[in-house]
Amino acid sequence: ISVFNHNIDATDKGEFRHYMMKEIYEQPNVISACLEGRISETKVLTSCFGADSAFLKEIENVHIVACGTSYHAGMVAKYWIEDLAGLPCSVEVASEYRYRKVAVPKKTLFLTLSQSGETADTLAALRMAKELGYLTTLAICNVPSSTLVRESALTLLTNAGPEIGVASTKAFTTQLTALLITSVAIAVENGLSVEKEKELVQAMRSLPAYVNDALLEDAHIKQVADRFANKHNALFLGRGTMFPIALEGSLKLKEISYIHAEAYPAGELKHGPLALVDENMPIIALVPHNDMLDKLKSNLQEVAARGGELYVFADKDTELHNEDNIIFTEVPKVDSILEPIVHTIPLQLLSYHVAVVKGTDVDQPRNLAKSVTVE
Amino acid sequence: ISVFNHNIDATDKGEFRHYMMKEIYEQPNVISACLEGRISETKVLTSCFGADSAFLKEIENVHIVACGTSYHAGMVAKYWIEDLAGLPCSVEVASEYRYRKVAVPKKTLFLTLSQSGETADTLAALRMAKELGYLTTLAICNVPSSTLVRESALTLLTNAGPEIGVASTKAFTTQLTALLITSVAIAVENGLSVEKEKELVQAMRSLPAYVNDALLEDAHIKQVADRFANKHNALFLGRGTMFPIALEGSLKLKEISYIHAEAYPAGELKHGPLALVDENMPIIALVPHNDMLDKLKSNLQEVAARGGELYVFADKDTELHNEDNIIFTEVPKVDSILEPIVHTIPLQLLSYHVAVVKGTDVDQPRNLAKSVTVE
Repeated sequence: ISVFNHNIDATDKGEFRHYMMKEIYEQPNVISACLEGRISETKVLTSCFGADSAFLKEIENVHIVACGTSYHAGMVAKYWIEDLAGLPCSVEVASEYRYRKVAVPKKTLFLTLSQSGETADTLAALRMAKELGYLTTLAICNVPSSTLVRESALTLLTNAGPEIGVASTKAFTTQLTALLITSVAIAVENGLSVEKEKELVQAMRSLPAYVNDALLEDAHIKQVADRFANKHNALFLGRGTMFPIALEGSLKLKEISYIHAEAYPAGELKHGPLALVDENMPIIALVPHNDMLDKLKSNLQEVAARGGELYVFADKDTELHNEDNIIFTEVPKVDSILEPIVHTIPLQLLSYHVAVVKGTDVDQPRNLAKSVTVE
Repeated sequence: ISVFNHNIDATDKGEFRHYMMKEIYEQPNVISACLEGRISETKVLTSCFGADSAFLKEIENVHIVACGTSYHAGMVAKYWIEDLAGLPCSVEVASEYRYRKVAVPKKTLFLTLSQSGETADTLAALRMAKELGYLTTLAICNVPSSTLVRESALTLLTNAGPEIGVASTKAFTTQLTALLITSVAIAVENGLSVEKEKELVQAMRSLPAYVNDALLEDAHIKQVADRFANKHNALFLGRGTMFPIALEGSLKLKEISYIHAEAYPAGELKHGPLALVDENMPIIALVPHNDMLDKLKSNLQEVAARGGELYVFADKDTELHNEDNIIFTEVPKVDSILEPIVHTIPLQLLSYHVAVVKGTDVDQPRNLAKSVTVE
């Protein structure tokens, strides 16, 4: 795994104007750190879950519980776990989970995600879950000394280093990386072939380089942000694993740019939100390179026909490009398993540059705290 | 079950200016029609699922798949099924479900919801599901002759009569009614006590009267709409079964009033959307009368502290009322199982009156079709 060393101290902004930008640029590095020791050339090393990885063989279901950005990471993992491991997976917001009567299937892994490991609702959910007969509890967390880590049976640290910006960036992409490792590890015990495991691990090994490639669009995205910054609303569209990334991209814009951005699975557009689309409601489309490309292109035509401005994030081979009402941003072409992680980068950059244009307090947005340690 | 007979022909607007309003006012009646023959004084009549209701004993899991408004109804049912029957339930947008590899636990009921029974993505999901080894397929649908009904093994008709307004109203509340019947029927086979069944059935029997009571706030809500109509954005908040109702309320505003309204589970507010809250971003809070009341009041204080205008929908006993920055609308106090249905009514009226003030085409909003029969 190649490491991009930006030589920056963890609590110093270095060459960057804001912590958020520094943390965005640290991602190739910290994703490497997250992969380090967890994969070989061809395999996931199950020792990363601790001495006894026997639980991996026993899991029959997965429940993921988290808040905010971490919840979006969990949503991506549902697609991976059901697809790769063939096990049912549910994902829920911690503040909902903890206040309802939850039905727990037998041999279910309870998996929490939290950058700080101190998120009040997630901790309360974990404590409740421990009374509900789960197989075991796994925390994917960035802070080794946190309460969540201490109270969970198993931990996979994200190794992102301290995150100072309130809007989470590197914590999110390393959560996704850790979830990918976990999903493949579970899948290996549920019939994933040696060849497929090797293919996935090799894709993971190239992830830091692809994230670095995605960062090369920074100057272009700054220009896009200049055009975008006067918007008051936006709709983000994605399908499959790109839907949670659309949610995360829209959350970043809310958090630091104070733009009312909302995400929808693209197939839901005709069931209501299309009524909102006019020249004042731009669409941000995350275009994956798979069977869904044509469907998404058809969604985009509907939007264009209604005067909406389209901001499209896609790889070059999609044959999408700048034209009237389409503002194109290139994303590196990668194995589909990596798409949600790589597509996150340009959306982070977009929200950052929009916030800078608008002059908001990027690292300390109004009304928000870094860790939500109260309900 | 008392029937409120408004003496209106199904395809005539009668005394109403728009089909949507007529359909809102038909709800006490059509909910009665949906309950008719499906419950006795004390029990759910499982014969409503057809001659052979043996499947009810066998179900170990439920997968609900739907689009748009119907998806929101399905989300409410997840809370009911896990709470009352103790069975795991997942709910998914049809356009997502049909394009991913889904893990199906054994003995899972596949339940679809569609007003028209012709929704393209829902039909495609059903056809896919039939190849995946589900226990059986149940459609909750409003059109007896529809493709969805024809292709499903079991059907529970909503009996709402023709719905002409593009924005669904009576189809939604009758879907919820049918889902409540279904949830209780499944729960009875999974340990629900005779006393609890009787209590729930008696609550159901009073539902049409409570919906009628909710309609009595119409004139008040018209005044609220006058104040609200100049907004461009809104955040809807709810917890538990009120979260999907918040989603549905925000979808109505999008569909016919072209206001960018978005819903969040109230506990997620601090994880990002609170950054949006200022004097231009009103909050619509659906306040249930249960243990969560104090939590929601605390969420509301956060909003008020940031200059946000609060539109609160709650029963009188919550002790919430009109004050600076709080615009209070009374909702009838009902058994908590009925709250999501009864709370839907004032939100329908709000979006209707806002649309009328704004002069949009209420029954035929721009860009939308009644049934989404193409992808």
